Amino acid sequence: MAKTYTVAVVGATGAVGEQMLKNLEERSFPVGELRPLASARSAGKTVRFHGEEVVVREATPEAFEGVDIALFSAGGGVSLKLAPEAVRRGAVVIDNTNAFRMDPDVPLVVPEVNGSKVWEHKGIIANPNCSTIQMVVALKPIRDRYGLERVIVSTYQAVSGSGWQAIEELKRQTRAVINGEEVSCEVLPVGKLSKHYQIAFNAIPQCDVDQENGYTLEEMKMVRETQKIFGDDTIRVSATCVRIPVLRGHSESVYVELKEEADPAEVRRILAEAPGIIVQDDIAEQVYPMPLTAANRHEVFVGRIRRDLHNPKGLHLWVVSDNLLKGAATNAVQIAELLVSSDK
Amino acid sequence: MAKTYTVAVVGATGAVGEQMLKNLEERSFPVGELRPLASARSAGKTVRFHGEEVVVREATPEAFEGVDIALFSAGGGVSLKLAPEAVRRGAVVIDNTNAFRMDPDVPLVVPEVNGSKVWEHKGIIANPNCSTIQMVVALKPIRDRYGLERVIVSTYQAVSGSGWQAIEELKRQTRAVINGEEVSCEVLPVGKLSKHYQIAFNAIPQCDVDQENGYTLEEMKMVRETQKIFGDDTIRVSATCVRIPVLRGHSESVYVELKEEADPAEVRRILAEAPGIIVQDDIAEQVYPMPLTAANRHEVFVGRIRRDLHNPKGLHLWVVSDNLLKGAATNAVQIAELLVSSDK
Repeated sequence: MAKTYTVAVVGATGAVGEQMLKNLEERSFPVGELRPLASARSAGKTVRFHGEEVVVREATPEAFEGVDIALFSAGGGVSLKLAPEAVRRGAVVIDNTNAFRMDPDVPLVVPEVNGSKVWEHKGIIANPNCSTIQMVVALKPIRDRYGLERVIVSTYQAVSGSGWQAIEELKRQTRAVINGEEVSCEVLPVGKLSKHYQIAFNAIPQCDVDQENGYTLEEMKMVRETQKIFGDDTIRVSATCVRIPVLRGHSESVYVELKEEADPAEVRRILAEAPGIIVQDDIAEQVYPMPLTAANRHEVFVGRIRRDLHNPKGLHLWVVSDNLLKGAATNAVQIAELLVSSDK
Repeated sequence: MAKTYTVAVVGATGAVGEQMLKNLEERSFPVGELRPLASARSAGKTVRFHGEEVVVREATPEAFEGVDIALFSAGGGVSLKLAPEAVRRGAVVIDNTNAFRMDPDVPLVVPEVNGSKVWEHKGIIANPNCSTIQMVVALKPIRDRYGLERVIVSTYQAVSGSGWQAIEELKRQTRAVINGEEVSCEVLPVGKLSKHYQIAFNAIPQCDVDQENGYTLEEMKMVRETQKIFGDDTIRVSATCVRIPVLRGHSESVYVELKEEADPAEVRRILAEAPGIIVQDDIAEQVYPMPLTAANRHEVFVGRIRRDLHNPKGLHLWVVSDNLLKGAATNAVQIAELLVSSDK
């Protein structure tokens, strides 16, 4: 009989947690026991897994007894507190929050890019930020072939990156605008900050708290995580992260400077052959990735591939992916698959 | 008695035309006779001007008899056909379409940037593309102080850039999505092309027809018009133009490389003192421009001003403006004001 695993999903009732359960199911991950965990408030609810209702338990240190793999997606505070407890009890933690990503003892893994890093874990493996994951998947084959000097990225991020509350807020606000009613703002751009702005029919150039250097945390994640994932501190990344009224699917306008000149036709070929990427690129036929067509898909979609008009080593790309899937749940489950692959 | 002018507005019932009438009113332009013109289909409708209903006439060559200033915003085809007729009859044409912008005999004018060029006209003055106008207004003071080598811009464009039909389409699609009904797509990204995509809750990386070089016409407008307005073919501009579900107000993530290092605090001061610009820039206090707050305003709003993380001569900006006002109607009426200022 094939080996199975006790898998805990922390934040099982959240927007990403729901997708993690779905991914474990769809990808036939060898789950022996599923242990959905959440805050005390959500304990007692049920989630559906392989046709059965499974009761959600409160995420306490004891809840990790006997767990082999724990997928965390319940906020950085929960991970900081409970991930070490899970590790102490023998689990390997795959953490989807920002809590441990830059910890030198924690591998930051995108399987298509640096999958072998999972073996260096000391109990915790970090899942990168959604915006970073889709970008590095697209850049990996390009970097391998031409070398990568520099990245300037502007994002068009979906509200689901901020969870259920933000999804509901966009829907609620949109309905209010359409009906000519008053619009209330409670969640975006950042729930815990004091000012909240309407996202319906708007664009907000802030996706996380600010840092002292004038950038937001979301922007600095894209800088630091990209360098860590490629293991190359010389890659110069700058980012502008913007929230737009899209429910699901982050888009990115990415400019790269390469060490060598790149022919767009060859770039298309290289990307089409790379794992996890689908090239949709024919502007004359109006073919390009869009969040609506990338939603509910596991791949990273790349289009609008064209040479910079002035720098022969410069290339522009348009990269779209489902932020809840490859940007979060799919990547986490892929890491779990890598982990158990050695047991086969 | 002060001199007054017979002013024709071609496309008077369109989204931009409506704003032109409003601007002429609000800015107390010395209109003696207003002559609203439109297609045969719209002839007979009325528009409101200074409290009176004025009947819209069909835009024919003869309709320009006696016109001093003709503001055109009814599509490139109409301008190509009728602007020369208006000029032949003694009018000065201020054209808001792409028809004449790159014509070496036609000045391309943003009053804050190159206002003196209006005097070089031979009958036609072109109003630049909306995306270009707001960007060059923001870049002018920066270029004057530090010199400008290069621009990489990604846009977040409102649907109103594509007129009433696109505005109605976004509203109709949004209502359908919210009500769980079927969504129809007829206008965006480009009415005359064969494929139309949903803009509600989506992002479409195409704002105009494609060019042979892999860029869209909207993107190439930003490149060529910026160079022409600054009178400097050495400025290296690259653009990615994207439509997002916003009704009014284009946003732009702009990266510039300067000839000299720029201190962000000094840049803020220089921009705040420049005409037509409002600086909204304090990320720690969540202050930045957004399309919702820039809508129905005539200025260009600039925020998120910060140094590039790796290039001391690199600077990032977030530039927002109402595409129907400064991006179109306001700029056109400002040009008309410049024209008549010499008569005073």
